[in-house]
Amino acid sequence: MKPNFSLRLRVFNLNCWGIPYLSKHRADRVKRLGDFLNRESFDLALLEEVWSEQDFQYLRQKLLPAYPAAHYFRSGIIGSGLCVFSKHPIQEFTQHVFTLNGYPYMIHHGDWFCGKAVGLLVLHLSGLVLNAYVTHLHAEYNRQKDIYLAHRVAQAWELAQFIHHTSKKADVVLLCGDLNLHPKDLGCRLLKEWTGLHDAFLETRDFKGPEEGCTMVPENCYVNRQELEQFPLGIRIDYVLYKAVSGLYISCKTLRTTTGHEPHSGSPLSDHEALMATLCVRHSPPQHNPSPTHERSPLISVLREAWAELDQGMAQGRWWATIAGYVIGLGLLLLALLCALAAGGEIREVAVLLWTPSVGLVLGAGAFYLFHVQEAKGLCRARAELQHVLGRAREAQDLGPESQPALLLGQQEGDRAEEQ
Amino acid sequence: MKPNFSLRLRVFNLNCWGIPYLSKHRADRVKRLGDFLNRESFDLALLEEVWSEQDFQYLRQKLLPAYPAAHYFRSGIIGSGLCVFSKHPIQEFTQHVFTLNGYPYMIHHGDWFCGKAVGLLVLHLSGLVLNAYVTHLHAEYNRQKDIYLAHRVAQAWELAQFIHHTSKKADVVLLCGDLNLHPKDLGCRLLKEWTGLHDAFLETRDFKGPEEGCTMVPENCYVNRQELEQFPLGIRIDYVLYKAVSGLYISCKTLRTTTGHEPHSGSPLSDHEALMATLCVRHSPPQHNPSPTHERSPLISVLREAWAELDQGMAQGRWWATIAGYVIGLGLLLLALLCALAAGGEIREVAVLLWTPSVGLVLGAGAFYLFHVQEAKGLCRARAELQHVLGRAREAQDLGPESQPALLLGQQEGDRAEEQ
Repeated sequence: MKPNFSLRLRVFNLNCWGIPYLSKHRADRVKRLGDFLNRESFDLALLEEVWSEQDFQYLRQKLLPAYPAAHYFRSGIIGSGLCVFSKHPIQEFTQHVFTLNGYPYMIHHGDWFCGKAVGLLVLHLSGLVLNAYVTHLHAEYNRQKDIYLAHRVAQAWELAQFIHHTSKKADVVLLCGDLNLHPKDLGCRLLKEWTGLHDAFLETRDFKGPEEGCTMVPENCYVNRQELEQFPLGIRIDYVLYKAVSGLYISCKTLRTTTGHEPHSGSPLSDHEALMATLCVRHSPPQHNPSPTHERSPLISVLREAWAELDQGMAQGRWWATIAGYVIGLGLLLLALLCALAAGGEIREVAVLLWTPSVGLVLGAGAFYLFHVQEAKGLCRARAELQHVLGRAREAQDLGPESQPALLLGQQEGDRAEEQ
Repeated sequence: MKPNFSLRLRVFNLNCWGIPYLSKHRADRVKRLGDFLNRESFDLALLEEVWSEQDFQYLRQKLLPAYPAAHYFRSGIIGSGLCVFSKHPIQEFTQHVFTLNGYPYMIHHGDWFCGKAVGLLVLHLSGLVLNAYVTHLHAEYNRQKDIYLAHRVAQAWELAQFIHHTSKKADVVLLCGDLNLHPKDLGCRLLKEWTGLHDAFLETRDFKGPEEGCTMVPENCYVNRQELEQFPLGIRIDYVLYKAVSGLYISCKTLRTTTGHEPHSGSPLSDHEALMATLCVRHSPPQHNPSPTHERSPLISVLREAWAELDQGMAQGRWWATIAGYVIGLGLLLLALLCALAAGGEIREVAVLLWTPSVGLVLGAGAFYLFHVQEAKGLCRARAELQHVLGRAREAQDLGPESQPALLLGQQEGDRAEEQ
């Protein structure tokens, strides 16, 4: 590879809001998205919320000449909604479905049925190995009283661990997606700290788009205004994150975000804004575009915070399992009583009538119990992994900064390379 | 590292048959297992079917001096049953829970409730990175009519993919566990071919244990004789598999398998036999212990076979979902009819009585439908990954042997290194 080698990578990310029957003007938006992607000819287009496989197949056909490689990540009952279109051949792909993803009985929220996941693509570009990840975490329905917080933190941790363990031989790591996390939210900080990924919006010197880089803005006619009540400028929950390892330098030359409408026709492509980043990978540090320095939270304090959140979620899960256990006990008692009443001939009809709902109660509580036992186990698993990393980070701290690389296994090699 | 460097690794694997209340003499066997492991002082002890976390905690306490590091892999409702004890510090660990794992309504088989998984440990030994995996795949209850075959093949594929993507920077890869697969079964061949792992039993020149290396033998008093009716010598379903990458050579010096009883006391430790392997990692090929050559199935034919199996499973899953769809439709019709009858006053009591079971029918069929939709999606996902690899393997074949390493991303580097 030449010393003045540089790789330019144009990346597109959009949460497409493609819910069949529910999302407005879906067919038209998907058509316009296809036209837009064809016109722009990105290296990689990573999409979320393409819930209908027909939409994916339509786009696949439409984009075939400009994006010969494509993949739809199937999972759960509805699907992960994730897909990708690539100008370059995809060498390998796989996916990881998050262990925890909301509650099946919260049918109106629907996340549980989707099988939210992270998809991985391995590409070989100019002799470099690029691991590109696309993901979509559990939605936030109520920021003040967020019952899914522990699940989202666990998902952020699983995502970070998946990237950490699968990208060890990658030269460049790219993560795009709708994290459903604000930049300073615990999950976002945890993800960035443990993977060493950089945020394109914070790193670039050339950004054009809504103030604060928001990706859900009140100017977008599809956005639910109520969701943005507390945030008059909008919120930033969609990201382009990246890092390069061992002797490579990556920078974000430009980042463009749509501002409530598609640049060409004027109508928005989705209720989220699209992110378009031009990344540059080099062997020497960028001279004219030094990365602005941003304060990073120390790993240990983020880990500690996440540990506490998972611990609380676990206690909550166990509490629900206990409640369900009591209901099962009461239901069984009721059933026994009803059997006795029916056998005894007294108020026989009432007893027979009540028998089936009681069986339903016991079965429902049983399912609820099993679900929360599994939830507590999942959170306990994430907490144990986190605790181990926390222990090692503390050891590294105690031994001084020289020992950190060895102990933390170069997990932030990208950072260090870029900060030199 | 010196040229005459060698790393000796003593590994223990056992499916512990530790089902609370159901497995015979569990407490005594766990105690004896602890004594045995303490006496032998292996580098790594990888255990399956430790279903009770109390058993793990008991062993952890007991083994603390000889095995200071330990981890229990939590997942699903009951747990994965996987745990590990290590003489050396564990640098990192994580796990991957298999997407498909039997059917929740097959309560008597119970696998679905376990959350079967693969656990990963990263160890640093003498400057080498060792990725050790422990796993337990879905049980085989009826070999003649195996309704779980597609799930087990999908699990073997997910396991192979997890190893493939997480071990790219590992020097040595070790996989131990109960695969519930005979050596020539599709899943076993698929796993070996895609990961390039070698089978300790087939590779070693110094094996002591039951004929054919069986790990469930009729001499073991806990074994269910019916399961072995077709196999008078027993079956081999527990494995120690390994590979080394890039310039390293790994060989299995000795492999010992218990023969239906523990070597010291005479009583068996479990219904499975324990595997004890001594592995040796060097920089030069082993001179006095050349690896016996074993016929390996060509990758393409194994992939094709697995593709067909997953495809058939998918069709089956979709068929069940369709049947459930019809039942839901009929149930809804019945409900409407009952409502009409109840409102009309005719046979009102019967209508009211039948109403609740009909709701139950619709809900049950709904759950069944959703489960099989998800099953079909999971199998479709594995089939898509497999198809992609198959396409690339065919390209590699068409381009001739020289292009294979580049195209198949050195997935069998270990093989090549060892076969040189």
